[in-house]
Amino acid sequence: MNAKSAELAAQLVPATYIQQGLDAVRSREKLVTTLLAQRRLPDNGWDDASVELLLQTLSAMDSNNFRGSAGAGEREARVFSPIVARRHFYLAHGVGRSGDVAAVQPKAAGSSLMVQLANAMAKDVLRLAGLRAVESALVLPVATGMSLTLVLLQLKEAKPDARYVIWPRIDQKSCFKSIVAAGLTPLVLENVLMEEDGKVGGQLKTDLVGMAGLLDRHGSASVLAVMSTTSCFAPRAYDSVEEIAKLCKEYDVAHVINNAYGVQASKCVHQVEVSMRTGRVDAVVQSLDKNFMVPIGGAIVCSPSRDVIDRVAKFYPGRASATPTLDFFITMLQMGRNGYRRLLENRKHVADYMREQLQALAGDLGERLLHVSSNEISFAMTLATFYQDAADTKEKSRQLTLLGAMLFSRGVSGAR
Amino acid sequence: MNAKSAELAAQLVPATYIQQGLDAVRSREKLVTTLLAQRRLPDNGWDDASVELLLQTLSAMDSNNFRGSAGAGEREARVFSPIVARRHFYLAHGVGRSGDVAAVQPKAAGSSLMVQLANAMAKDVLRLAGLRAVESALVLPVATGMSLTLVLLQLKEAKPDARYVIWPRIDQKSCFKSIVAAGLTPLVLENVLMEEDGKVGGQLKTDLVGMAGLLDRHGSASVLAVMSTTSCFAPRAYDSVEEIAKLCKEYDVAHVINNAYGVQASKCVHQVEVSMRTGRVDAVVQSLDKNFMVPIGGAIVCSPSRDVIDRVAKFYPGRASATPTLDFFITMLQMGRNGYRRLLENRKHVADYMREQLQALAGDLGERLLHVSSNEISFAMTLATFYQDAADTKEKSRQLTLLGAMLFSRGVSGAR
Amino acid sequence: MNAKSAELAAQLVPATYIQQGLDAVRSREKLVTTLLAQRRLPDNGWDDASVELLLQTLSAMDSNNFRGSAGAGEREARVFSPIVARRHFYLAHGVGRSGDVAAVQPKAAGSSLMVQLANAMAKDVLRLAGLRAVESALVLPVATGMSLTLVLLQLKEAKPDARYVIWPRIDQKSCFKSIVAAGLTPLVLENVLMEEDGKVGGQLKTDLVGMAGLLDRHGSASVLAVMSTTSCFAPRAYDSVEEIAKLCKEYDVAHVINNAYGVQASKCVHQVEVSMRTGRVDAVVQSLDKNFMVPIGGAIVCSPSRDVIDRVAKFYPGRASATPTLDFFITMLQMGRNGYRRLLENRKHVADYMREQLQALAGDLGERLLHVSSNEISFAMTLATFYQDAADTKEKSRQLTLLGAMLFSRGVSGAR
Amino acid sequence: MNAKSAELAAQLVPATYIQQGLDAVRSREKLVTTLLAQRRLPDNGWDDASVELLLQTLSAMDSNNFRGSAGAGEREARVFSPIVARRHFYLAHGVGRSGDVAAVQPKAAGSSLMVQLANAMAKDVLRLAGLRAVESALVLPVATGMSLTLVLLQLKEAKPDARYVIWPRIDQKSCFKSIVAAGLTPLVLENVLMEEDGKVGGQLKTDLVGMAGLLDRHGSASVLAVMSTTSCFAPRAYDSVEEIAKLCKEYDVAHVINNAYGVQASKCVHQVEVSMRTGRVDAVVQSLDKNFMVPIGGAIVCSPSRDVIDRVAKFYPGRASATPTLDFFITMLQMGRNGYRRLLENRKHVADYMREQLQALAGDLGERLLHVSSNEISFAMTLATFYQDAADTKEKSRQLTLLGAMLFSRGVSGAR
Repeated sequence: MNAKSAELAAQLVPATYIQQGLDAVRSREKLVTTLLAQRRLPDNGWDDASVELLLQTLSAMDSNNFRGSAGAGEREARVFSPIVARRHFYLAHGVGRSGDVAAVQPKAAGSSLMVQLANAMAKDVLRLAGLRAVESALVLPVATGMSLTLVLLQLKEAKPDARYVIWPRIDQKSCFKSIVAAGLTPLVLENVLMEEDGKVGGQLKTDLVGMAGLLDRHGSASVLAVMSTTSCFAPRAYDSVEEIAKLCKEYDVAHVINNAYGVQASKCVHQVEVSMRTGRVDAVVQSLDKNFMVPIGGAIVCSPSRDVIDRVAKFYPGRASATPTLDFFITMLQMGRNGYRRLLENRKHVADYMREQLQALAGDLGERLLHVSSNEISFAMTLATFYQDAADTKEKSRQLTLLGAMLFSRGVSGAR
Repeated sequence: MNAKSAELAAQLVPATYIQQGLDAVRSREKLVTTLLAQRRLPDNGWDDASVELLLQTLSAMDSNNFRGSAGAGEREARVFSPIVARRHFYLAHGVGRSGDVAAVQPKAAGSSLMVQLANAMAKDVLRLAGLRAVESALVLPVATGMSLTLVLLQLKEAKPDARYVIWPRIDQKSCFKSIVAAGLTPLVLENVLMEEDGKVGGQLKTDLVGMAGLLDRHGSASVLAVMSTTSCFAPRAYDSVEEIAKLCKEYDVAHVINNAYGVQASKCVHQVEVSMRTGRVDAVVQSLDKNFMVPIGGAIVCSPSRDVIDRVAKFYPGRASATPTLDFFITMLQMGRNGYRRLLENRKHVADYMREQLQALAGDLGERLLHVSSNEISFAMTLATFYQDAADTKEKSRQLTLLGAMLFSRGVSGAR
Repeated sequence: MNAKSAELAAQLVPATYIQQGLDAVRSREKLVTTLLAQRRLPDNGWDDASVELLLQTLSAMDSNNFRGSAGAGEREARVFSPIVARRHFYLAHGVGRSGDVAAVQPKAAGSSLMVQLANAMAKDVLRLAGLRAVESALVLPVATGMSLTLVLLQLKEAKPDARYVIWPRIDQKSCFKSIVAAGLTPLVLENVLMEEDGKVGGQLKTDLVGMAGLLDRHGSASVLAVMSTTSCFAPRAYDSVEEIAKLCKEYDVAHVINNAYGVQASKCVHQVEVSMRTGRVDAVVQSLDKNFMVPIGGAIVCSPSRDVIDRVAKFYPGRASATPTLDFFITMLQMGRNGYRRLLENRKHVADYMREQLQALAGDLGERLLHVSSNEISFAMTLATFYQDAADTKEKSRQLTLLGAMLFSRGVSGAR
Repeated sequence: MNAKSAELAAQLVPATYIQQGLDAVRSREKLVTTLLAQRRLPDNGWDDASVELLLQTLSAMDSNNFRGSAGAGEREARVFSPIVARRHFYLAHGVGRSGDVAAVQPKAAGSSLMVQLANAMAKDVLRLAGLRAVESALVLPVATGMSLTLVLLQLKEAKPDARYVIWPRIDQKSCFKSIVAAGLTPLVLENVLMEEDGKVGGQLKTDLVGMAGLLDRHGSASVLAVMSTTSCFAPRAYDSVEEIAKLCKEYDVAHVINNAYGVQASKCVHQVEVSMRTGRVDAVVQSLDKNFMVPIGGAIVCSPSRDVIDRVAKFYPGRASATPTLDFFITMLQMGRNGYRRLLENRKHVADYMREQLQALAGDLGERLLHVSSNEISFAMTLATFYQDAADTKEKSRQLTLLGAMLFSRGVSGAR
């Protein structure tokens, strides 16, 4: 509401009330000013109305929403369905330009501003989580797997003759496919079982000797990168990323970290942070949905080098959906720094509680909870007593599937 | 987006793009300025985004949406359900104060502004439809029947000993009940059948002689008002409101017109307009949903006298739902003067078309479409051939009900 | 999704997944079945999606949303603005019929079902709060003041010559206006100051002797009702409704209780409950917004007599907005019995905390918090030291206004 | 509403009304049955309410929305922001699995069903537009450029040693980048100017001789594909895709058609159709936003071979955003076959009108509209008189930029 409107409004409603109302409007506008000035998560999360008001304003700044515009081109962000238009807040230009997925669009000032802020908040929230060595971050409009492919393709551009990616094995199909999709050949490195003193179980850790062996055998020139993993399922532990980073530095080979759902886990974060400071880390990819509670569809790629991120952005062919970026943008505004910290703390408490309860349950059942010190995200429990009567492997497998089905039908998902 | 924000935004997105975007935002703000300056329907309807942006702004001006407010009172517009909050655009203070349903609320500058504008647009749209003698209009948060009761109760305040309301009969329960609910006694006046020269049928018109007789018999002191009706079902014609208005003036008795769905019909409007100019009309009540395509719930009461409307507003005990007013407000913004005119013209064409088709159908069936010159809204057709084999009245009635059911099950509603 | 669809879906997605999905759909449908069977608040509040799914279904049952319908009548629930249509979930027929505001509408089966359930839940939530003697409850589409007027008008129908309403004074304009608006004359009864033993202050309680005097003086025939009040601002205490109820029974005079925001307060509820059991209570009116956290616009009228409520429903002239009923309906579904109980408990804790803190603050400032045992809702604190330097009443008043403004500008509203 | 609910509802609202309401609900459910049975666009577009009801049902079938579920995994589709949750209709699982972007997700039966239907409708709408040779189609969750990259990467998988893509030049950066991003080398082929008999101007067409030359020079083994283009800016004409398809067949080289915004243009469609029937076409990529009026973010890849599409789907690494698919799904339901046909016809009329008006304008200004028979999408007009006073190229360029700015500020975008 502009000054003239305020003056006119005061002819209908007493000026003091209008003034108080406008003060409130201004205080919401100030939130926006602060956001633009600080380019980081607000301290406290915004309420729905503040977010909606900002989105409405940004939307009005995009040319497809200009009143009286007559778009004659092929890309004018016409939207047929009112349901679709509304769910995008009338933002329809996507993100990026043909030259750069992080670039501003002349036709879409509002969307462009949103993208810039989202990327700034991506960097901020990663630093807040402990990744202080991050110099640049980019919200990619594709999920983790495809983001890893993009990073590899970009790396390949500068080293077109390299064809191998060393990959400490993890039972997750997307990572493997992300390498193949880039036209590269994964060199799969099996993990080794490390006994932990005086503790039950053990954990599967990176075979660093084997990795050096692979590097020696294939040579730095033909190895494009090592792709290490932080977050994974116990009893596999996170990779020894610090040591890998040192190896990569030594051998002058790129290092891409698949930090899919590691931002929430302080140990993963610490490992990645130390790696960036002491070894070589080209890019770290983290899932938007797994770390920041948005629908599946995006990832953040970050790096201690601004240059790497710029190159990834410029590498992306064409425009892309604004949805992952917008979801992240809205979520960061509503979560705020304090909200994010609370979620991290809460996760810690809940994980501890779950460990205790699983331990107790395991004890009652004559089973054991495995101790995997390098994995604070996932828990593994033996199921020996479940099998004892099973005649063969097939029967074992049948019983396992049955157990999984029983859990799922009781509303417990996420167990493997 | 304030000046400081614009400046900061230009550090993220080129200043020229930001400027164009802000120009677009300003152009939407100008719509609001024009609305506040003119206080009438915009020439062209607003798009969804412009309406939503205004509602968000008005909403931010209400104290329940102030950031950091700590309402300790009993009426702080707390809303439990997010679904409910959103559907009201976070506006929760209703309309009015204990003193006046049209009054501004200190706690709700945004809602108050909306109410003032809605009432101004109510007056404007009525004048646009042809009721140029209207000096003041008020959107009441209750539907037609209850609005008529309120008007009668208010009239009674000044003439507490009057107990009768003369009411030319119309087969519509709400009107009758609106009189009884006000603690008054209706004097029902049967209509008379008027033959129209050379035309088939005839129409039921006001018995003006009978009305004068009732006024004489009971005396002006004990008759509070005449309640006349415009819109009704053929073969009843609209009341002779012009003549009634003259009688009321002559006898010094109030005249309330039930113009429920008459605003859309130029003949009704003309009659009411002439009545206001030449006779006595205290208040005219029109339905919001029937004339302006909003959900049921409100009415506009208007008058050639500002004073009458002010008294009705001040008479209403306590606050009320903002929904009927808000629905009307949004609808007028989206319809615009041109949209409203188009709807009126369209109605005329569609009505003519329906008359022709019904006439043809009647001819085919050996029935007749009644000619009711003083009713351009509703059509009556004979159903003589439907009964011819019916043994008795009961059988006739059964056949009629069957016909109605057949129409309804074929998706035709509104037939009687 | 019907059986045929499920079968077809299983050709696209494995039948087991479809089955699990449909089980989930069925489990939401079961919520509806339980609601229809029990006709009371669900134990646990429903999530947004369950509520929206039900509203979509109810909406599809209203004739304006029938596919292929061709409404030719004047009341076909056409909605012009898509914004308005959506905010009403395409429900547009309002509530009630010309005969009865609680009646079902043939054209609107979905809306009608919603209304019946809302009224059933109104009774349930009042009983849950402690008003176990309530036999019938009705959500009225008008706020407290207008609801009181309606109740009085209805009572008057049966006793047309009674003209007085005895009203123990309370400084709240709407109640007074609700009597006048009904064309009745309030007999204002001043309260008396009751010292409480050994406690600071005192409280203003009903002058029961004075009330009996008024009844004697004017006679039962000319007194229509006593309107008593529970919730009010300290130092006024709630009225001695139990004793008033006995007086009303004795004198055979109707008793209407203005329980505006008393449902949340166990003492008010207890008083009303005892009154209904031991004396005469015709109707109790409570605000929807103040007790159940919805936007302003509705009230619940309840009674130990089903007959009274039926008469009020049948008395209402015409249809009305569905919004207050729908807001209440949604809110009760989302709150659930447990949610409501938590809110009541929470209010108690917060009120205790506020009393303590105000007491401490008062002590620090050399003021006192008044002890008003019969008012657990509102607190009164002396402001003697604020005036001590004030030269005269005008100056005192100026300082008080200043204090109020200071509180409001600090986000504290609700103080008087 | 299940049978038990219907029975219970009939205790609250007369059974006949409930039955009518349920019939209406059933009629909406039948829409879904028809959709599942036919797997193509509905004849007539669905209204908002029908779409929303279906989305709510699908959403309830996804495990993240199961009541009482306790997701313990890392990918449980938790959504923090209510704004984000709502805008996705609580669908949060994205599309695909690690194995296949078109695969169903056990955790998300509703989303999976939506994806299958969207892909079926993609095939249907392309065939409706005239691409009858299409055997399979897939909505990709990335825009045109990235989709082309994916197709190329997939082709490369089977022919890892091929490194060239022959690309008839078009001034559009994304296409070029899509080749480079795939780690391939574009062989840029300049177009040739073809005079058209007796017509002003001429058009730029594919240099087929040059193309054969490139194929001969580099050999089929090292050329991965030809990437041809249909839709483009005049005076460039669409590529001679039919002849290219024959060449590709002859040389056994893959053929990828960039049909970015060609689906709307009957000539482009005809060319592609003939190519698929008579030559080699591996995959055709079309933009979702440019052809189907959704926000930027997706593309459809289609092929005369089911196998190619399956391989592309299986190739995609990991899950992806459901938004492009969902936007397309909603839009096709709301558009319907008739709506789509109307839009195509309308485009034709508008294009003819624009040609006429541009021709007239050109005539008035002493300019000419170029005749480009093989481009029915875009128009080119000379601007000779604009330059005549320009001293040099720099000045010419300045004047052109000025013209563009003048158009843009007058609300005309899309001009080049």
